[in-house]
Amino acid sequence: MTHAFQAPKGTRDFYPPDMAVRRHLESVWRSVSINHGFEEVDGPTFEHLELYTVKSGPGIVSELFSFRRAGGKTEYALRPEFTPTLGRMVASAIKRLSPPVKWFSIPTMFRAERPQRGRLREHVQWNVDVVGDASPAAELEVLAVLIGVLRRFGLTDRDVTIKLSHRQVVTELLLGAGLDEARLPAAFDLLDRRDKLPAAEFDERAATLGLDAGTLEVFRPGGQSRIDPAGVSEHFGQLLSALDDAGLASWYTTDFGIVRGLAYYTGTVFEVHATSGRERAIAGGGRYDGLVELFGGPPTPAVGVAMGDVVLRLVLEETGRLSTPETYLPRPDVFVINLLETTGLRDRTVAELRDAGLHARHSHRATKKLGKLLSEADQLRARFAVILGREAEEGRAVVKDLAAAKEEEITLDTLATTLRDRCHAKPEDQP
Amino acid sequence: MTHAFQAPKGTRDFYPPDMAVRRHLESVWRSVSINHGFEEVDGPTFEHLELYTVKSGPGIVSELFSFRRAGGKTEYALRPEFTPTLGRMVASAIKRLSPPVKWFSIPTMFRAERPQRGRLREHVQWNVDVVGDASPAAELEVLAVLIGVLRRFGLTDRDVTIKLSHRQVVTELLLGAGLDEARLPAAFDLLDRRDKLPAAEFDERAATLGLDAGTLEVFRPGGQSRIDPAGVSEHFGQLLSALDDAGLASWYTTDFGIVRGLAYYTGTVFEVHATSGRERAIAGGGRYDGLVELFGGPPTPAVGVAMGDVVLRLVLEETGRLSTPETYLPRPDVFVINLLETTGLRDRTVAELRDAGLHARHSHRATKKLGKLLSEADQLRARFAVILGREAEEGRAVVKDLAAAKEEEITLDTLATTLRDRCHAKPEDQP
Repeated sequence: MTHAFQAPKGTRDFYPPDMAVRRHLESVWRSVSINHGFEEVDGPTFEHLELYTVKSGPGIVSELFSFRRAGGKTEYALRPEFTPTLGRMVASAIKRLSPPVKWFSIPTMFRAERPQRGRLREHVQWNVDVVGDASPAAELEVLAVLIGVLRRFGLTDRDVTIKLSHRQVVTELLLGAGLDEARLPAAFDLLDRRDKLPAAEFDERAATLGLDAGTLEVFRPGGQSRIDPAGVSEHFGQLLSALDDAGLASWYTTDFGIVRGLAYYTGTVFEVHATSGRERAIAGGGRYDGLVELFGGPPTPAVGVAMGDVVLRLVLEETGRLSTPETYLPRPDVFVINLLETTGLRDRTVAELRDAGLHARHSHRATKKLGKLLSEADQLRARFAVILGREAEEGRAVVKDLAAAKEEEITLDTLATTLRDRCHAKPEDQP
Repeated sequence: MTHAFQAPKGTRDFYPPDMAVRRHLESVWRSVSINHGFEEVDGPTFEHLELYTVKSGPGIVSELFSFRRAGGKTEYALRPEFTPTLGRMVASAIKRLSPPVKWFSIPTMFRAERPQRGRLREHVQWNVDVVGDASPAAELEVLAVLIGVLRRFGLTDRDVTIKLSHRQVVTELLLGAGLDEARLPAAFDLLDRRDKLPAAEFDERAATLGLDAGTLEVFRPGGQSRIDPAGVSEHFGQLLSALDDAGLASWYTTDFGIVRGLAYYTGTVFEVHATSGRERAIAGGGRYDGLVELFGGPPTPAVGVAMGDVVLRLVLEETGRLSTPETYLPRPDVFVINLLETTGLRDRTVAELRDAGLHARHSHRATKKLGKLLSEADQLRARFAVILGREAEEGRAVVKDLAAAKEEEITLDTLATTLRDRCHAKPEDQP
């Protein structure tokens, strides 16, 4: 078998159980986003390469999958993140949109990097953004939907923490520690890589910037300093108060070591980490007030967060918040068991049940043993088994409620409507 | 504004109303597929380029978006269709799968061609496949789920027709018309392009193959010939009988002008066309018994169909089966109207409603005029309006059922649970 017959490195084949888990994640993201008043959008899977170089500089190109059409000149790239698409879409439609715009999306994203634990070449990512609100209320909306999603997954404030930071506060703390202003970008970059560097190397590099180990303790979760963050940024102070007022204090800690590598953040930044500390950030985001303008729109404030499926799934598994993948497969409403010699009645019955909007299956095995077929129905977690046996001659089927272990006879011509009503299904010709 | 700030040619930005329509299409595809016992799968958005050249030959490359990683040697391509991925996935897992495998998927697909009406560079495509069943029952299952989907969209057998054909029958008809066997591929290719060529050019090319206009009438919908299709292919005859027995006779016609360009079909082929004849095929598929083996698996029979979102949407619009896009946006359960000076109670109320699993919104406009705010609630098609006014001092809110135009007072501390029960919502901490 050649390598062509395997999924490309860093990508995934989703067989039914894994696909069912993915749909579970997406469905929680979608339903909580909608409850919080966000509207779903999407853009193209690939964009003009320039969209990314304008935002992130030419250095980004080596991290992207980029290409041209055979014989074409235009350069495209698979999207590595959704924010540039969002900025472009808002910029080009700003006149007919009435801000604040509250959008979410669940696109697939691509990185041309070496795959690592929690970081693949293709992943699914949930994005929520509030565009057009400069006040801390925008951050609060984004953090509230984020916490809503974490809770719906069954995670608690003991499983995960939102590490909150603000670029202006980080800047003041660094300058207060005696850092030369010219070295701010280098210090930001170093803080951003703290978790990836060996402690000794981090300290050594910090020392060359003139930062000693004592000073660096300020850049730890909950680190205390003489500087009052609310004094540096009134906006950030208001956000912390708003979170406390909303009863969300237990979900966050300030952590001024969080700077977020992406240069376009302009104020608040945050990451969600599992308290176990074993995985990469589950989610990250912040305020990026310059992006819509960068793509040709008017100055427009914006806040957003993104959460990928790979780290999320690892954390849900580690915290016992995910059942075995098979349990996420759709449950059949009805499993039809055919004990008759011919398949005509079975086929008509299955077709009627499906037309009535029910999820109906039958065995593809040759066996006529009731016990074996009932255990197949059980294994699929069907709600009802319909048994076509000798009662069929009198126009009736035996219907077994598999959870309640109750059994009754139902006439064949009312079977589909009876079971439809019990399962609250919607027939196929009613959109 | 540079071109980089627009979606690439042939791709689409999905703003909320268009996204809602797309989700409507996907949700019908998904729910009917599940009802028919298909399980969802997905693969990578890009595959090894070789996967496509092995199946379709080197000629396919110019129709694909292909690329390498910077500095890498492996050639990849954005997937132009799902079948190769499916064949590869079945081949590599055949030992743990118990055929027949019934899979569906809803991936995005890419073509590096000049965009045309109904044919974009990126589109969403529904795929269903039955793998491991050589009998006409497999075709029947695929055609039944296809008709189930068409019906759920509100289409009838007067709006659309399935044109059924069989490669072996087409071959016999061509040879019976005196075609030289060596010219079969050329004749297949010509039939496949009949709709795209001017009639005169088609006739001329047919004549050079030795086919006269009279003969060619056989290759029209319902065309009659001295050859009995069931005599040529027993399998095809059984399929037609099975469709008639299942009450689906009105949905199809035989049309031996349908050959399907893709060379991997091995028997039955079919397309779905709007009776208006104005658009491209809505869907197409057939039997491809050689594909799993081609990707390293054992000989495995397979039947499948694919339907893209672009032509489908055009046909649904033309037949009046699609409402205005806005009506597909999710309806809020509750719209909170704040007549108080402060926003604290509003924010707490909205948060409680959302925590209870309800889709809750409030106005972002400054107005306190009840009439204006109620009409905003109406415009969003909210089910309930919760009015926070002077009753709030006594711990109550006015709740208006907007469809029934009924009004009542509910105490604030039972508001979320009361409305949750009325809307059958699931709270956020119950996954």
